[in-house]
Amino acid sequence: MADPRAEAERLATNAVDVLPEGALAEQLELARPLRVKLGIDPTTPDIHLGHTVVLSKLREFQDAGHVVVLIIGDFTARVGDPSGRTAERPVLSDEEISANAATYQEQAFKVLDRDRTEVRFNSEWLEMGSGELLGLLSRATVARLLERDIFERRIEADEPISALELIYPLLQGYDSVAIDADVELGGTDQKFNLLFGRDIQTAYGKPPQSIITMPLLIGTDGAQKMSKSLGNYVGVTDVPEEMFGRLMSIPDDLMPDYFRLLLSADVPDAEPNQAKRELGRRVVERFHDRAAAEAAEEHFDRLHVRHELPEEIEEATVAANGPVHLPALLAELFGLSRSEARRLIEQGGVRIDDRVVDGGELDLPLDGLDGAVVQVGKRRHKRLRVER
Amino acid sequence: MADPRAEAERLATNAVDVLPEGALAEQLELARPLRVKLGIDPTTPDIHLGHTVVLSKLREFQDAGHVVVLIIGDFTARVGDPSGRTAERPVLSDEEISANAATYQEQAFKVLDRDRTEVRFNSEWLEMGSGELLGLLSRATVARLLERDIFERRIEADEPISALELIYPLLQGYDSVAIDADVELGGTDQKFNLLFGRDIQTAYGKPPQSIITMPLLIGTDGAQKMSKSLGNYVGVTDVPEEMFGRLMSIPDDLMPDYFRLLLSADVPDAEPNQAKRELGRRVVERFHDRAAAEAAEEHFDRLHVRHELPEEIEEATVAANGPVHLPALLAELFGLSRSEARRLIEQGGVRIDDRVVDGGELDLPLDGLDGAVVQVGKRRHKRLRVER
Repeated sequence: MADPRAEAERLATNAVDVLPEGALAEQLELARPLRVKLGIDPTTPDIHLGHTVVLSKLREFQDAGHVVVLIIGDFTARVGDPSGRTAERPVLSDEEISANAATYQEQAFKVLDRDRTEVRFNSEWLEMGSGELLGLLSRATVARLLERDIFERRIEADEPISALELIYPLLQGYDSVAIDADVELGGTDQKFNLLFGRDIQTAYGKPPQSIITMPLLIGTDGAQKMSKSLGNYVGVTDVPEEMFGRLMSIPDDLMPDYFRLLLSADVPDAEPNQAKRELGRRVVERFHDRAAAEAAEEHFDRLHVRHELPEEIEEATVAANGPVHLPALLAELFGLSRSEARRLIEQGGVRIDDRVVDGGELDLPLDGLDGAVVQVGKRRHKRLRVER
Repeated sequence: MADPRAEAERLATNAVDVLPEGALAEQLELARPLRVKLGIDPTTPDIHLGHTVVLSKLREFQDAGHVVVLIIGDFTARVGDPSGRTAERPVLSDEEISANAATYQEQAFKVLDRDRTEVRFNSEWLEMGSGELLGLLSRATVARLLERDIFERRIEADEPISALELIYPLLQGYDSVAIDADVELGGTDQKFNLLFGRDIQTAYGKPPQSIITMPLLIGTDGAQKMSKSLGNYVGVTDVPEEMFGRLMSIPDDLMPDYFRLLLSADVPDAEPNQAKRELGRRVVERFHDRAAAEAAEEHFDRLHVRHELPEEIEEATVAANGPVHLPALLAELFGLSRSEARRLIEQGGVRIDDRVVDGGELDLPLDGLDGAVVQVGKRRHKRLRVER
C-alpha cells in the first residue's frame, strides 16, 4: 500500500479540483476499497474522447483497488422536463433509456474494468413516495440551489427555470446517499452538483464524499468543449480511419491537452505533423489495435497526401428506374438526415467521381451512376451499384 | 335563477379581489352548482372570528346552491418542514392532524351547511409516486414561485427558504386540479396561492378556477390580523361571557369592519358603547343563542359596570397539605402554562379575593385559601375548595 498522501497526489494528476483539501488522502488511509461514483445521463448513447478523460481517471482508481459505481440516471431521464421550455433534458421512452444505457456501458468498458464496476440505475432508490421526496426537498435551500452557474446565467438572460430543474441536483445528491459514495468524479461543469452531493449526504447523516473534477476536453474545432451536438467530437466507436482523420484535423495547440488527458503523456519532441500522427496512432490503438492504427494512417496518406481513393470502397446497391434524388441517396448511403445531406451539398462537401456536386443538380440522371464513387466530406466513400 | 351578473356582484360583496374580472359571472351562467374550494391547514384546531369571514362567504355560496369542498391539508401538514429553520409549518403526528381536522370541521359547521360540504383530505391525491410529483414540479418556473410575497421578504432579510417551502404552492394548486375547483376562496394573504392554482389547473388541461379573496379581520388589539398566537382573537367556541367581553374590548374604529365582515351589517346609529354591545350580543347569538347573549351582557355589566363578582363562580377543588405554588395552581385551574401564569402575576393580572397578587409572593400559605376567589384577567374566576 502506497503512502496515502503520495497516492492521493498521484490520483489527483490532471484534475482541476480535488476537494476538500486533504480529504482524499484521509479516505485512502482507511485502507479499504473506496466507492467512486460517476453519474451518467442516458440521454445520449455514444461516448466520445471527451468522456474518456473522466473514465480514464476512474480506471486509475480501479487499478489502485477501488470500486467504481456507475449510476445510470434512468429515473431522472424518464422524468425529463415536459414543460418543453428547455431542451436540457428531453423525455425519453423506457426503451430508449435501456438501449442508451446498454450502449453506454458497452463503450465505457473500453476504458473501465468490468470486474471493479458496479452498475446501478437510480430508479432503484428514486422511485420513492411523494412524502419521502418532499423530505428530500426540505434538505436544501433555494438560495443554495440557485447558486448553480447555469442557473445564474439563465436568470441573467431571463430564461425560465422549472421547479423540476431546480431540484435536479438534489436527486443527483441523493444518489450519493443511496450508494454510499466516498468519491465522486465529473467534469469541471459538474463541480456544483458534486459539492451539492456532500450537503445531501451530510443532511442524511452520511460522511460526505470528496470530489474530483477533470478538465473538459476541447473538441477537434479547437474552440468549444467536445460535444456530439457540436460535431467536433471523436467517438470511441468511430472506425479507425475516421478516428485517425479527425485527430489529424485538430489545431496544433490542442496537442498538449490531448496527449496529457487521453494518453497521460507529453507531446513528443517532433514536427507537429509527426506528433499528431503519433497521437492518432496511439488513440486508435487504444480503442482498436496496432494493426488498425497502421491501416488508418495508410488510409489517411492515400487520401490526403497522395490524393488517391481508399484501397477498398464499400459498395452500395440502390434500386432505381429514373433520376435519383441525391439527398435521399445520401440519406440511404451514409445515414444522414435529408436536411444534413442538403446542407453538405450546398457547402460543396459532396463529390461524385471526384467532381463536386453543384447545389442546383439534386436529381441525377440514372446514366453513368452505376459504378460511380459517391464521397461525403473527406473520408466517407461508397461505390454505387444501380439495380434497375 | 338570478341574473348571473347580478348574482356575481352579490357574491362579491366585501371581497377584496374577484379574479379574473367577469369570470365568476361566466361560471354562474353555466347554471350548475359550482365547486367552491377552501383549503385549510390542520396545524391549529381552533377557528376564531377571523376565519369566519371566509367561511361566511362560503356559506353564501352554499345558500345559492353551490357546493363547498373543504380540503384538509393532512398530507402537507405531515410533511412539514423538518429543516427546523422555519416555524412556518411544524411537523404534526397523524393523531394531532386527525384531532385538529375533526375539531376544525365541528367548528366550521357552525357556519357552513353540512349537507352542501364535501370534506376531502389531500393525502388522497398527493400521496403519489415521486415521478408524478416531479412531473408536477415541471409545471412551474422558479421565478414565478419566488414572486410569492413572503419569499420576497425572506430573500431581502437573507432568511433561508427550503426547496420544500418553495414548492408548497404547487401542492396546493394541485388540490384544485384533483377536486375540479371552479372557485377558490381565501384571505388576501392567500392571493398568490389562489392565482397559482389557476396556472396548475391550466398546465393539467383543466379550466382554471376563479378566485375570491376576503379581507383579514383585525384582532381585538386593533393592530394586527386576528391570530391565535397573538392572543388578539375571539374563538368561535369561546363561552358567551368571554366572547362578549372580548368584543367589548375592541377599539371603536374596528366596529365598521366587524359589523360588515361578521354580520354583513352596518354599524347601528347609536352611542359607540351601545353599538359595541349590539355587536357583542349579535355575535354571541350567532355562535350560541339569544339567551346566552343576554346572560353574557348581564355578566359583563355585573363585572365591569357594577364591579360585582359574577353570579355563579365555578368551584375548583385542590388537594394541598402545605403552601400552594401559585403558578402551578393557576396552570391547574385555568389551563395556562406556568410561564404564562408567572407573566400574568408579574403584570398584576391575578387577584385573590379581589387583592392583586404581588410578584414576590408565589408560594401562598394554605390558611385562608379555602373559599377564596382566584381571578385571572378581567373575566376568569374560580372559587377554591382546599382538600387537606
